[in-house]
Amino acid sequence: MSDAREAPFSYPGLERIFHERGRLAICTCLIAHPDGLSFTELAAACDLSDGNLNRHMHALTELGIARTEKQRGPGRPQTVYRITKRGRLRFLSYVDELEAVVRDVHEQSRPGVARAKLATT
Amino acid sequence: MSDAREAPFSYPGLERIFHERGRLAICTCLIAHPDGLSFTELAAACDLSDGNLNRHMHALTELGIARTEKQRGPGRPQTVYRITKRGRLRFLSYVDELEAVVRDVHEQSRPGVARAKLATT
Repeated sequence: MSDAREAPFSYPGLERIFHERGRLAICTCLIAHPDGLSFTELAAACDLSDGNLNRHMHALTELGIARTEKQRGPGRPQTVYRITKRGRLRFLSYVDELEAVVRDVHEQSRPGVARAKLATT
Repeated sequence: MSDAREAPFSYPGLERIFHERGRLAICTCLIAHPDGLSFTELAAACDLSDGNLNRHMHALTELGIARTEKQRGPGRPQTVYRITKRGRLRFLSYVDELEAVVRDVHEQSRPGVARAKLATT
């Protein structure tokens, strides 16, 4: 990995595990639902096929970013997916880098307001 | 493509052509350098190998997002890469969606400040 000053556009914080579009959707959705979501709810909210979601959830749980939990209620127990504490921190750090990209683009693409740093939006 | 209200976390605007990390770096770098950059400068700024950069630039020029230009100066002519007008608009629209992801994560991950919409950052 090269120095950020040498490669100012390399964005090393854009971790591959989160950057794939489906995973970005899943993690954002899990962050928004701290009480967990069922497989079906997650697939619908992120517009992912069962196969795709299954593949991503397998990888995310393997890496300790998401976890499953059996929830008992009036009906039969349901499996819900949640983001782990560690996964949450790691994902938020990835999103910080994403924000840096957005900021760089905004600053560079509007020369006249470059120094205002989105102050008026 | 499903309705955004049905799949609020699908982010259909995250166009695959820009979302790959290397391409995101390249387009951000080209936006920041409207006068163009040489292959070597672009590779260094984005920390990409020649092979990787070559592959991405081939795809981006094929799609009309970037273009090459021969620049004549005191020395021998140099080829520089630029983002096209159309590519710029399309990339900025992709970045708007990226910003929506960042906003969603910030709003959802800090319940106490959810309605402040990053006003204090």
